Amino acid sequence: MPTIRIILDTDPGADDALAILLMLASPEIQLEALTTVQGNVSLEKTTRNALALLEFLNARHIQVAKGCSTPLIKPPHGTQGEEVHGKSGLGQAVLPEPKNKPIEAHAVDYLIERFLAEPGELTLFAIGPLTNVALAIRKEPKFAQSVKELVIMGGAVRSGGNITPLAEFNIHEDPHAAHIVFNSGIPITLIPLDATYKCLLTSADVDRLNKIDSPIARLVHDVTADYMEFYLKYEGFNGCALHDPLTVAAVIAPELLTLEKHYVNVDISGGISTGKTYADFMKVAKQPTNMQVALDVKGREFVELFIERMERLAYQFNEEIASGKEQERPRNDINA
Amino acid sequence: MPTIRIILDTDPGADDALAILLMLASPEIQLEALTTVQGNVSLEKTTRNALALLEFLNARHIQVAKGCSTPLIKPPHGTQGEEVHGKSGLGQAVLPEPKNKPIEAHAVDYLIERFLAEPGELTLFAIGPLTNVALAIRKEPKFAQSVKELVIMGGAVRSGGNITPLAEFNIHEDPHAAHIVFNSGIPITLIPLDATYKCLLTSADVDRLNKIDSPIARLVHDVTADYMEFYLKYEGFNGCALHDPLTVAAVIAPELLTLEKHYVNVDISGGISTGKTYADFMKVAKQPTNMQVALDVKGREFVELFIERMERLAYQFNEEIASGKEQERPRNDINA
Amino acid sequence: MPTIRIILDTDPGADDALAILLMLASPEIQLEALTTVQGNVSLEKTTRNALALLEFLNARHIQVAKGCSTPLIKPPHGTQGEEVHGKSGLGQAVLPEPKNKPIEAHAVDYLIERFLAEPGELTLFAIGPLTNVALAIRKEPKFAQSVKELVIMGGAVRSGGNITPLAEFNIHEDPHAAHIVFNSGIPITLIPLDATYKCLLTSADVDRLNKIDSPIARLVHDVTADYMEFYLKYEGFNGCALHDPLTVAAVIAPELLTLEKHYVNVDISGGISTGKTYADFMKVAKQPTNMQVALDVKGREFVELFIERMERLAYQFNEEIASGKEQERPRNDINA
Amino acid sequence: MPTIRIILDTDPGADDALAILLMLASPEIQLEALTTVQGNVSLEKTTRNALALLEFLNARHIQVAKGCSTPLIKPPHGTQGEEVHGKSGLGQAVLPEPKNKPIEAHAVDYLIERFLAEPGELTLFAIGPLTNVALAIRKEPKFAQSVKELVIMGGAVRSGGNITPLAEFNIHEDPHAAHIVFNSGIPITLIPLDATYKCLLTSADVDRLNKIDSPIARLVHDVTADYMEFYLKYEGFNGCALHDPLTVAAVIAPELLTLEKHYVNVDISGGISTGKTYADFMKVAKQPTNMQVALDVKGREFVELFIERMERLAYQFNEEIASGKEQERPRNDINA
Repeated sequence: MPTIRIILDTDPGADDALAILLMLASPEIQLEALTTVQGNVSLEKTTRNALALLEFLNARHIQVAKGCSTPLIKPPHGTQGEEVHGKSGLGQAVLPEPKNKPIEAHAVDYLIERFLAEPGELTLFAIGPLTNVALAIRKEPKFAQSVKELVIMGGAVRSGGNITPLAEFNIHEDPHAAHIVFNSGIPITLIPLDATYKCLLTSADVDRLNKIDSPIARLVHDVTADYMEFYLKYEGFNGCALHDPLTVAAVIAPELLTLEKHYVNVDISGGISTGKTYADFMKVAKQPTNMQVALDVKGREFVELFIERMERLAYQFNEEIASGKEQERPRNDINA
Repeated sequence: MPTIRIILDTDPGADDALAILLMLASPEIQLEALTTVQGNVSLEKTTRNALALLEFLNARHIQVAKGCSTPLIKPPHGTQGEEVHGKSGLGQAVLPEPKNKPIEAHAVDYLIERFLAEPGELTLFAIGPLTNVALAIRKEPKFAQSVKELVIMGGAVRSGGNITPLAEFNIHEDPHAAHIVFNSGIPITLIPLDATYKCLLTSADVDRLNKIDSPIARLVHDVTADYMEFYLKYEGFNGCALHDPLTVAAVIAPELLTLEKHYVNVDISGGISTGKTYADFMKVAKQPTNMQVALDVKGREFVELFIERMERLAYQFNEEIASGKEQERPRNDINA
Repeated sequence: MPTIRIILDTDPGADDALAILLMLASPEIQLEALTTVQGNVSLEKTTRNALALLEFLNARHIQVAKGCSTPLIKPPHGTQGEEVHGKSGLGQAVLPEPKNKPIEAHAVDYLIERFLAEPGELTLFAIGPLTNVALAIRKEPKFAQSVKELVIMGGAVRSGGNITPLAEFNIHEDPHAAHIVFNSGIPITLIPLDATYKCLLTSADVDRLNKIDSPIARLVHDVTADYMEFYLKYEGFNGCALHDPLTVAAVIAPELLTLEKHYVNVDISGGISTGKTYADFMKVAKQPTNMQVALDVKGREFVELFIERMERLAYQFNEEIASGKEQERPRNDINA
Repeated sequence: MPTIRIILDTDPGADDALAILLMLASPEIQLEALTTVQGNVSLEKTTRNALALLEFLNARHIQVAKGCSTPLIKPPHGTQGEEVHGKSGLGQAVLPEPKNKPIEAHAVDYLIERFLAEPGELTLFAIGPLTNVALAIRKEPKFAQSVKELVIMGGAVRSGGNITPLAEFNIHEDPHAAHIVFNSGIPITLIPLDATYKCLLTSADVDRLNKIDSPIARLVHDVTADYMEFYLKYEGFNGCALHDPLTVAAVIAPELLTLEKHYVNVDISGGISTGKTYADFMKVAKQPTNMQVALDVKGREFVELFIERMERLAYQFNEEIASGKEQERPRNDINA
């Protein structure tokens, strides 16, 4: 089976960090670049975190392009995300200041350049607000048809929203961008709260992982500790939802997801439902299907898979350190 | 157990007729009056149907008050409902022209008068657009606190809508009225599509009922035949959803319903989500709970209950005809 | 010339009081009843003020019917209007507690009864939020066609709004009601801020009037004193706009108004422009004309006319007091 | 007086062509580049027209960068603009196919590059939908503060709209872009319909100009002939409004304009008022002033000025042709 070549648009972000870890831990995937966007925290912080994570994980060959610092139309939410993701955006994790810098190109131009260079070859994952992706679509009309597939973490279809009664954070943060993306013709797999809230990583899971004495295990702990506390305080359960990591299941374990094809769109009316991601289940709008949506998931099975992959990565990482080969680690260097 | 005294606001309507039948067949209930509203068909037709049904069922002592002929703000939908409910509103049923007339009082004034006369004593069922109820609330500030409970058929919470991707017909037909009602402080039980679409009366069920040779059994057949055809054509299943009858379960078989308390409201923004009935499952709006919502139902059990009641009513009706006592039938005459 | 028979829907309110004074001072007009609505202040206060004004002016034969205490859909604005109109709603005026009470009938029913009793005979003036009028239209489909003419104080067409950048207070306070009224088919004359803000009563005008030692002159002073202060503070001119009184010009001095026929409607979208009253000047919507709008006025001439009428009323009132005939005063008793 | 260095974002478009002519005819102005956007006609056509016009006018040294082919969020209006501007976008004018091509850079990147290269030096004129300008603002946060001034043709403030009752075409075509631009902090001068509809070029004016036998005079005729016919048919006057050319008055004859400073914004609610450009005349929103708006103009004086400039350009152009120096014409070569 060929590896899936992925560019990841991200706003790390605690669960973004876990998604990056899971991608690096998954041999099915070749992570080729990150593009950053404001979202969980500010663009400066998400970009810094992206670089720091890659360096910490000996994956500094993966390029980072810096993208949009505000949503398309609505004002950014301020520092609200820091309540969940910590002031740095990575919870309690304290990573060394990155030595690398983002590449010169703006994320929007980088996305356009990469996807137009190899049409139909690359898969795009977007796990933050969709601002960069939307601007790429609007700036370059050929972009949409060059994307093989787009996997998005976002939306609350049957579920209630987590930022308003109707809307999920990523979509609500830039609903206009989501509207552009959903209507672009790109083949989309949407991973909404309906599925992600069923994938709860518990503190027991993190403890189990930390039986391995490894920087990887500690990172997972540090990234999730405050996140779990937030969930306990506001949503009443002990654990944190693996929102962003679950997107990876679309590639490495699609059998865990209940995927349905629907016409899906987002409300940008400016009213109470702004940012609502809705599916036309009864086909009353007579619109063609534009994406597949994960409406359910075998949640515990995914969490087990996640932990196994983390354990494997932790062992592999420890070995690399021991052998002094850490700098060669990711065999999937895009410049190779 | 005391009988529940009910006033029913209705727009018959095929499934409204079934709800009326079920109420008359239920000893737990004393149906005291009908108020009519435009909805499934025009006000002239819903009022004529209400009177004709009561006379056909030997329940002509139950008063009918005629209400609003258009929604509060939006223009009425025209004759769209006739596609589902037939040109008369009662499918293939041909009932004799009623001899009674509606009472003089407008439904809005009648509701105000009845509920203010016995505060906390009467339960209101509303199974059409909420125009009459909303006007009663706005015209008489004391109305809301006089209603013991309000059971509504309407909304699509987790479900998709049946008239737009997001909205159910009754709520969408007069979203502003629903907004007034939901925010009135009246204790509400909402029966949305989430539950009603799980209560499918099949043609086999109707055939079984018609083994009894009775006007009641034939009426159920005539009222549902076209309705089932519509469902088969547009929604792909053989049978019809017992939308309005399921409200009666709130009184006669609440154990069949999965009722949850939530803050529920309706979108009146004028955008794509207008008429969307949403629940704040994650309590992000920090609003107090304002109703209980049926999010699930033991559907087949309710359909069985419905058929049993219809069978009982059919036998009872045949006996009344045989004994010549038909004119005395409803022991629950409000003037008694 | 026959007198114009008027029913006035009002929310007194400082300038409402001036409009009532002007009507009573105008022989062209027979003021037959008041209906009250919440608006400038609460319904309790507007009703009390209506009764108190009529008694103070020896016009206690004019019936008052009490109407709606909240707008149709949106929540009432609270006590914001008291900033302009004073805590009582009548500025510094302290009127004796009224001895009369409102009639039993609700304003909505009273409007329906009066207009249906004499179709095409009565003119309706509405100088507050349009809640009562809208409910009458919705409750009784024949109401709209029974109204000879409806003169409304409301809207800002070319002008900026006075409550939001786009909306005028009366329309903004119940935009849904205005939408119902504007689309009802009633022949409407709209008097918006475009005209009313050009009719500024100055403190010099009030001083001139008070050269007559009369309760009328003092009332005009007491009602306007705080109002003028508000204008000076927030809008920077010394004087107060004769918003509501200008509606009377439509009957007694239409030649002062620049009236244009247009298709006019109101935004009820829920967005920033909610309550905006717009005219389709370029006829792009291809809708039929539904009202005439006063887009300009000979403002100073109207103010002069207003003062002259007040002077006349003051003299007439003094004479009545002197002759002890005050109780007979209004020859235009509707029961005569 | 130093010349004003201008980059023009445009969608030619009949009146865009006249604005380009007026800029080239105005010694106060150095037109340095054009960026194109869809609007009056498709992007392909506006770009072709921009190039063709510059070549026809011996101004082929002025670069053209091609921009956005659709609005940010809403779908483009289709071929509706061709009714006004002709199938080509330039009315009856048949210009030779241009030999030049647009530069490689996207208009958005070109704008960013030029303005960041010389912060505070260049003035931007935008006489089409604001899509390119909005994307530049969003893509490069430093763009807004680099623009010396932005002169926009767009909006209807007191005027009625020309595409909906409330909205003017350019703003309505991409209201979200206008919202981004209006709130960007760029110093803006807005030239709305309130002023432009008072600048009517009549067929007598065009005849007068054509007493000069010149390609320039003929071009003005050919570009405006159908446009005038449209105005006669739909808006009832003989002549065409000099919408886009009037922006040039902001630089060459500001004394003709009545400019007022206001807080101005655009409705993007999705409701009936979408695209409405409103000013907060009464300062109720308590927002800081963000632009100056031309609410009136000495219309006939501007039309005279326009014709004089066209006459001068016609003579100058004839001389250049006669002297064979046409290729050197525009002394304001940006590469000089």
